[in-house]
Amino acid sequence: MQRVDNTERVTKACACANVALVKYWGKRDPEANLPAVGSISLTLEGLEAEATISMRPADRFTSRGKTVPGRAYDQMVSFLDWVARTYDSETPLAVNIETNFPVAAGLASSAAIYCATATAALSFLEVSASRRELSAIARRGSGSASRSVFGGLVEWHRGTDPGGDDSFADPLLPAEDWALGMVVAILDEGQKKTSSRDAMQHVAETSPLYSGWLAAQEDDLESMRHAIHARDFPTVGRITEESTLRMHAVTMAARPAVLYWQPATLHVMEAVRELRATGLDAYFTMDAGPQVKVLCQQQDMGAVAAKLESVPAVLRVLQARAGSGVRVLEGKAPWK
Amino acid sequence: MQRVDNTERVTKACACANVALVKYWGKRDPEANLPAVGSISLTLEGLEAEATISMRPADRFTSRGKTVPGRAYDQMVSFLDWVARTYDSETPLAVNIETNFPVAAGLASSAAIYCATATAALSFLEVSASRRELSAIARRGSGSASRSVFGGLVEWHRGTDPGGDDSFADPLLPAEDWALGMVVAILDEGQKKTSSRDAMQHVAETSPLYSGWLAAQEDDLESMRHAIHARDFPTVGRITEESTLRMHAVTMAARPAVLYWQPATLHVMEAVRELRATGLDAYFTMDAGPQVKVLCQQQDMGAVAAKLESVPAVLRVLQARAGSGVRVLEGKAPWK
Repeated sequence: MQRVDNTERVTKACACANVALVKYWGKRDPEANLPAVGSISLTLEGLEAEATISMRPADRFTSRGKTVPGRAYDQMVSFLDWVARTYDSETPLAVNIETNFPVAAGLASSAAIYCATATAALSFLEVSASRRELSAIARRGSGSASRSVFGGLVEWHRGTDPGGDDSFADPLLPAEDWALGMVVAILDEGQKKTSSRDAMQHVAETSPLYSGWLAAQEDDLESMRHAIHARDFPTVGRITEESTLRMHAVTMAARPAVLYWQPATLHVMEAVRELRATGLDAYFTMDAGPQVKVLCQQQDMGAVAAKLESVPAVLRVLQARAGSGVRVLEGKAPWK
Repeated sequence: MQRVDNTERVTKACACANVALVKYWGKRDPEANLPAVGSISLTLEGLEAEATISMRPADRFTSRGKTVPGRAYDQMVSFLDWVARTYDSETPLAVNIETNFPVAAGLASSAAIYCATATAALSFLEVSASRRELSAIARRGSGSASRSVFGGLVEWHRGTDPGGDDSFADPLLPAEDWALGMVVAILDEGQKKTSSRDAMQHVAETSPLYSGWLAAQEDDLESMRHAIHARDFPTVGRITEESTLRMHAVTMAARPAVLYWQPATLHVMEAVRELRATGLDAYFTMDAGPQVKVLCQQQDMGAVAAKLESVPAVLRVLQARAGSGVRVLEGKAPWK
């Protein structure tokens, strides 16, 4: 598949971040990035990453035109090489990322970045792949990227195949079929000290509660699918809070503990409970960082944002509606 | 054993609170108050309850002379009746409690109260019992009361006997053999909404992490015994923090969640980590409430207290050295 005249060509794709409602935590295979559990997420419009693929071997991972430093660079380059190798291409791919939200701060930036990169890379290589196949490829870069292929509510299957061919995401409900959204309370703009990748490994190896986490996941997935199917928002919200608390419980029981919460995290959780006490349906969830994301219906986003802005420790608040799946902006879409 | 001229007689005992380093959470038999796990605690001088036993059937549980309201009253009366029945006495016992610290606020008041009450009651009934037997009797009133029978570092055995005869406490190390103490940061003087008794039951029934909690306890007990034996304070501290985080992890994974932490709890935990970063050995632990207790060596109590007082959300700070076991102040001690 050696190609000529590729040096000037670029392809471009745009993907949204997503936040898991039934959380992903732990890997059954770190090499192939296979999850220990399935998960269900909401794709978020407005937290977007745009990936531009080109051939520029000298500077292979840039963000807003600047070289990305450290380990993130190595991981991306290794992903790009894996994609090229998988499709028998000798083209050394390079990617530039533009994002409109903070990266590496527990806002699922890697989901948007790797989903957009995988899509643009397949487009560049002129590979034909279904969205499911694309999802499994994006997963290699970052597990949660598998979910950003689709919009709205999405399930990423754990799968059982050792090679990971059955560990891809499927859409559960498109964004336009249920007017959901998230209001994100940013509490700390700093990058986290430990990557989710390392933290997952440490927790799986040392938390005595990890097996309980694994055992409980299938029930939550099953209940969440039913609640989504029935458009039962209070149940979706309840499971969302339970799943996030269980995930954080497992991490804080690791040795040494991994504790993502800050005092402000508890302030915001309390504010969400106060909102509910007034009859407004809103539910918190947190990922591998202190920020609190609040799931609500789109009609309530303004009221939720106003409440979160009133919490003193909140730096700023983002509002995001349920968004659509990955789009190819330049080049041919890989899916059939 | 019907006695005459008892109406004017009183017996009196004084017991200290204790705080578990390897936590107690969950019951294997709620009726006999048998624990699902063993635990190890530090008895604290200065957090004391004095119990005066008399015969005054009309007003059987008073605190500082006033009738104790609600369920606490019923529990105490049922305990007093159980003790009397067990020793074939028809005497309807009454108790008055004086404490020098806040009750029902997660400060182990029930441990001190029930240990003092059990001791004074046996003295009143002129029963002869070993400290181990006394410990098993106090346990009927409140599990952690079994530990306050002894001073210093104490282990309460889970036991396997269905009747509970082997579920009593034993001393591990007397207070005078290791100059340990605790500095307590009071964050909320209010009484908790849910009793530990009810919370334990709810968590055992609904937390998917509960079996992991049970499975990990023996290792912690074993490691803690060794660390105490070796006077290895950093290891004692590390296990203390791990045990408390695991206990709180299990409760917050219940459905619905039981979350004892307040934002200030995390502030104090952070202050303790800051102290350690300066080379001072201090370790946090929390029970079924927001207050943070900080384990340290007696020589460091002043410095720890000063640090905790500097945390804005801390209402006040108590300092408590390792204390001694229960004492009989009026009447004959029951132990042989």
